[in-house]
Amino acid sequence: MQPSANYDLVFIRHGQSEANKLNIFTGWRDSPLSELGVSEARAAGRLLKAEGYTFDIAFTSLQSRAIKTLWLVLEEMDLMWIPVVKDWHLNERHYGALQGKDKAASVKQFGEEQVHKWRRGYATVPPLVEKSDPDYPKFDARYGSVPEADLPRGESLKIVVERVLPYWQSAIVPHIKAGKKVLIAAHGNSLRALLKHLESKGDAEIEGINLATGVPRAYKLNDRLLSARHADVGDPDEIARRINTVVSQTKKT
Amino acid sequence: MQPSANYDLVFIRHGQSEANKLNIFTGWRDSPLSELGVSEARAAGRLLKAEGYTFDIAFTSLQSRAIKTLWLVLEEMDLMWIPVVKDWHLNERHYGALQGKDKAASVKQFGEEQVHKWRRGYATVPPLVEKSDPDYPKFDARYGSVPEADLPRGESLKIVVERVLPYWQSAIVPHIKAGKKVLIAAHGNSLRALLKHLESKGDAEIEGINLATGVPRAYKLNDRLLSARHADVGDPDEIARRINTVVSQTKKT
Repeated sequence: MQPSANYDLVFIRHGQSEANKLNIFTGWRDSPLSELGVSEARAAGRLLKAEGYTFDIAFTSLQSRAIKTLWLVLEEMDLMWIPVVKDWHLNERHYGALQGKDKAASVKQFGEEQVHKWRRGYATVPPLVEKSDPDYPKFDARYGSVPEADLPRGESLKIVVERVLPYWQSAIVPHIKAGKKVLIAAHGNSLRALLKHLESKGDAEIEGINLATGVPRAYKLNDRLLSARHADVGDPDEIARRINTVVSQTKKT
Repeated sequence: MQPSANYDLVFIRHGQSEANKLNIFTGWRDSPLSELGVSEARAAGRLLKAEGYTFDIAFTSLQSRAIKTLWLVLEEMDLMWIPVVKDWHLNERHYGALQGKDKAASVKQFGEEQVHKWRRGYATVPPLVEKSDPDYPKFDARYGSVPEADLPRGESLKIVVERVLPYWQSAIVPHIKAGKKVLIAAHGNSLRALLKHLESKGDAEIEGINLATGVPRAYKLNDRLLSARHADVGDPDEIARRINTVVSQTKKT
């Protein structure tokens, strides 16, 4: 007998940002969507609508590129009116002292192996920012209500998992259990953290998984709120092309 | 001694909609912003930012033209991340069976005096829609959670006051009392309802007051949460021009 799959969830990584385009470690810095990112987000919204998806509530981070992606998707779906919850727990991974650095230049400075570890090592923490550094989130008004003990100075994917999953359980799961169709617009690493949980991936396995920008991933969840099945929404060749863009970022010169 | 004025509130009527442009009674129909409406909203956001305004929370209706206006203002102010509450109590007045009708053609059909009463008479209810009419809000998913007894079939400004003020008191005032700076993006008549209360206007007096599209009105509120002083934010000549556009809508041929 197939396990029952009664709950719907779709998540989407934001479209290309200006920093993505410039091949820069962005993390908690606020970079707007590029023109391509805007069109990726709009296309995702049109596609979801054409495929018959609808949503009752949406969640996003406190970062403009994810919020704007969500807004564009909702506008294309004629769902601007649904409730939207924004929370820092869905933010991108804080990239510590690497924020603002060019990815290819970092390879030259620190070596390919070290940069690969920082980017993909599950528990590898990047160099931390000092509390006097402008990249320390205390200086950003949007984090004014976050307890100082929770503010990151640099995070591994493991640390991101440890902030995303409690938020998933306490803030999002109750809506799904109440039968609401949920959309999450967030970031490469906060969504890899969620994917690791939903698809039961091991620490090593998640290191090799990349998410394309602006491609919705649709889940049917089982009674344990884990993936019963899932599928990316969109043209497979285009999705493969965008994943390859993410993978090759440190190879640009 | 001047009364103390410690609380900040700004409201803004949405920018020009496609239906405004076509001179049509819109009410609860969902009409997107026109290109001019988009630029009015962006300009309002830039102006508020330049004048040093900031906000902690925003409220809007369930209608796209108000939501989009809010989004554009927040984007220009770099405040996309603040919480946004959407609620049907801030919707435009339901225009009953007049919805979808051309304003100038209605003058020809019903006479100028009757149309003026419907538009500006404080307690004049327009012809109601039947419960089988597509303009009855029950057929719109966004009102799925509103009790049927609350769904309007046509409203006077008086009826709008009776839904806006309890929402103001119960949902918005607590945030203002807690010291939050509040932004409301809504509609000509839901904001005239609020203005009537804040500025203590009589039933006859409010009939002569019009709000320009896309012009923020900034209040300092006293301890009774009424206007201590207020000012429109923007160029006075441009504001006068936009108000005149609203007043002259039934005069077009």
